[in-house]
Amino acid sequence: MFDMISFIERKRDGGAHTAEEIREFVLNFASGAVPDYQASAWLMAVYHAGLKGEELKEFTLALAQSGQTLSFGDLRIVDKHSTGGVGDKVTLLLVPLAATCGVKVAKLSGPGLGFTGGTVDKLEAIPGFQTHLSSERFSDQVRRIGCAISGHSADLAPAEGKFYALRDVTGTVPSLPLICSSIVSKKIAGGADAFVFDVKCGGGAFMEDYESAEKLARALVSLSRALGKESMALITDMDQPLGEWIGNSTEVLEAVSVLRGEGPKDVKEIVINLAGAMVSIDSELSFEEGCALARKKLEDGSALEAFGAMIRAQGGDDRVCRTPETILPLAEKTHTISASEDCTVQAVNARKIGEGVKRLGGGRMSLGDPIDLSVGVRILKKNGVSAKQGEALLEILYSDDAKLADALPYFESAYTFGKANEPAEETVQRRLILGKIG
Amino acid sequence: MFDMISFIERKRDGGAHTAEEIREFVLNFASGAVPDYQASAWLMAVYHAGLKGEELKEFTLALAQSGQTLSFGDLRIVDKHSTGGVGDKVTLLLVPLAATCGVKVAKLSGPGLGFTGGTVDKLEAIPGFQTHLSSERFSDQVRRIGCAISGHSADLAPAEGKFYALRDVTGTVPSLPLICSSIVSKKIAGGADAFVFDVKCGGGAFMEDYESAEKLARALVSLSRALGKESMALITDMDQPLGEWIGNSTEVLEAVSVLRGEGPKDVKEIVINLAGAMVSIDSELSFEEGCALARKKLEDGSALEAFGAMIRAQGGDDRVCRTPETILPLAEKTHTISASEDCTVQAVNARKIGEGVKRLGGGRMSLGDPIDLSVGVRILKKNGVSAKQGEALLEILYSDDAKLADALPYFESAYTFGKANEPAEETVQRRLILGKIG
Repeated sequence: MFDMISFIERKRDGGAHTAEEIREFVLNFASGAVPDYQASAWLMAVYHAGLKGEELKEFTLALAQSGQTLSFGDLRIVDKHSTGGVGDKVTLLLVPLAATCGVKVAKLSGPGLGFTGGTVDKLEAIPGFQTHLSSERFSDQVRRIGCAISGHSADLAPAEGKFYALRDVTGTVPSLPLICSSIVSKKIAGGADAFVFDVKCGGGAFMEDYESAEKLARALVSLSRALGKESMALITDMDQPLGEWIGNSTEVLEAVSVLRGEGPKDVKEIVINLAGAMVSIDSELSFEEGCALARKKLEDGSALEAFGAMIRAQGGDDRVCRTPETILPLAEKTHTISASEDCTVQAVNARKIGEGVKRLGGGRMSLGDPIDLSVGVRILKKNGVSAKQGEALLEILYSDDAKLADALPYFESAYTFGKANEPAEETVQRRLILGKIG
Repeated sequence: MFDMISFIERKRDGGAHTAEEIREFVLNFASGAVPDYQASAWLMAVYHAGLKGEELKEFTLALAQSGQTLSFGDLRIVDKHSTGGVGDKVTLLLVPLAATCGVKVAKLSGPGLGFTGGTVDKLEAIPGFQTHLSSERFSDQVRRIGCAISGHSADLAPAEGKFYALRDVTGTVPSLPLICSSIVSKKIAGGADAFVFDVKCGGGAFMEDYESAEKLARALVSLSRALGKESMALITDMDQPLGEWIGNSTEVLEAVSVLRGEGPKDVKEIVINLAGAMVSIDSELSFEEGCALARKKLEDGSALEAFGAMIRAQGGDDRVCRTPETILPLAEKTHTISASEDCTVQAVNARKIGEGVKRLGGGRMSLGDPIDLSVGVRILKKNGVSAKQGEALLEILYSDDAKLADALPYFESAYTFGKANEPAEETVQRRLILGKIG
């Protein structure tokens, strides 16, 4: 019988587990034979003592193999994972863009939680779009048109889900080996052969400073490689929200505008860089060549076409590619926050914007809550930009007055101003890609 | 509402809790509002980060006040706590001895668990003896005859019991602040005004080396004083079992023989020293004067008389003081382990002897198991003593052949021998009192 107390004691005392012990532990935890109160003591011991290379690899594998695993036969699949940020509509554009560059993308996404939005929620805004595909249909679609996005099934790496829920309530979320095993195990279970990680860094991300973002990026790449998966990580700026729109419908709107050659530059550049990374780990092309290819495919309309094909394949209304305003649910009430005097925006706090949108109804206060897909905000003045007195800074689409009242303090306190003509603390020319690992 | 996640995170990050937080936490854990899996994560964080002076004091108080507390009005009560050892029949003699020296002793004892025996189990061997007194009767008896021994009620410091059970299965037993708070909280709830700690040290104790025993002794004294309780700790040898007999009936037998001026010297000396400590923290007498008084009261028969009075007061058959062999249940089958050649005993492993007696039926494999009070072993040759070929080393009283077979390997491997005439590694003149704190 598995001796859980000795297992905890070994980690408590800084020792290392054998591969077999780790597999037994994960199996017994998944089945319920190891109770939560023992698992949480072990998690806290890991928080202090860590998991060494082999242990981390075995733990990740055991999580990945704790349930159903996807397989795409001879197809070589590249997946991308973002650590999550405010206004991060990247997946919506990146998946079809990478597919037009020849990469096979089978993207599994989770729901939004905390102050960041989830891709699946955003796609729900497209009428008819099926966000949960069977594994057969998922695989068929990738083979046929090169890409698919589906909600993460509870059957994939179920032990990981169980651990995550326990970590969430026991103060053991921010442990590097636990974060890495959680992310990579799901990618492995999802059947991908190579991964690109978008590690967000700044006030609107879980990793607020560059040092911890870089540590995470290195750990993710090193764990993936130890498991035989090619991988690369970009560390990208999330000090202010990405793009202009935050919400669900509104982020699809913005994604389409970027695919049509309009829309904010920051979104376009991040998507091109991530696509470049995906191309480079999947081909002979260098990262720079991959980025050049992606830029071409985005600018010549191929990516928009691929986006339409993906929407049709998943049952959605592809008129969203041409007249998104008429197709997507958009809240009718608007509220504008304006500058009270001439000023320069020094900073827009992404986390506060995210919390505000959540309170408008655009995100979940707890798992399972319904979402109002039609609400959102548009940031009209971002870091370093000047505004005249009375000029609009932020435009809010909302459905419910009480929720607007709840949300307003978050939006109002998200802005930091300098005097007009005073140079902003941050340069107007924003650095988007802060680092590249792998 | 109490925010348990922040509470865990604070300790995880090495921070300190406020008194109010600690009280809220203990209350919420005791009521079940804080689930075990959160409490165990906190316990493991404490294992790594500790509890500072004020925190430890507040935690101990909160445990002590989590249920019923005893009070003896104007009586000043002195209690003694042993960290537990093999053959530790000290309480049986010490309580009446201290009472004859004028100390009021209200002793609460727990059942035996692990490889050490419990005082309550030993007392159960005396026909009619009531080991569980109501708080009124307990208090009355102390007032009337100066002493009483009763089983620890589950109503005293119930949160401590709940924490202990959780620590036992989550690898968080050996944490100095958790050990100290567990011990001291029960003493506080038991209503004592001053404590003497008998910290056992050696192979037959939980603290195997002197350094850790001294650390525990200092921590216990310092915590008690922080809570306004006078206290002293003796660090006593438990490298080999105390006295000759181990078991339940058999230890009562030995206690009586020491009270009658016979029996092993080591038991007598330890009891005199502990009584001296109890006298000295309860009077103007010095430790040495206290020991001298206790020696006199033991040698002049007063302690035996007080033992008889206590047995009568608790409904027991006091003939045990005169003809214990006819009163106590004693197993009829005997087995002897003899020397296979001329030799000198180098060491008797107390832990193995304890495990052997447990397997004979004399101790519990798990809480709630019944105990065979009649079994036991007598160690005829202890450390440093020579034996001729064929001479008896160990005499076993047993009831069940299968249990004897289970137990024998423990007894047989408990002995380490040198050649005859070879000087033993340990000196024959055993040092019993290794240190005194406070």
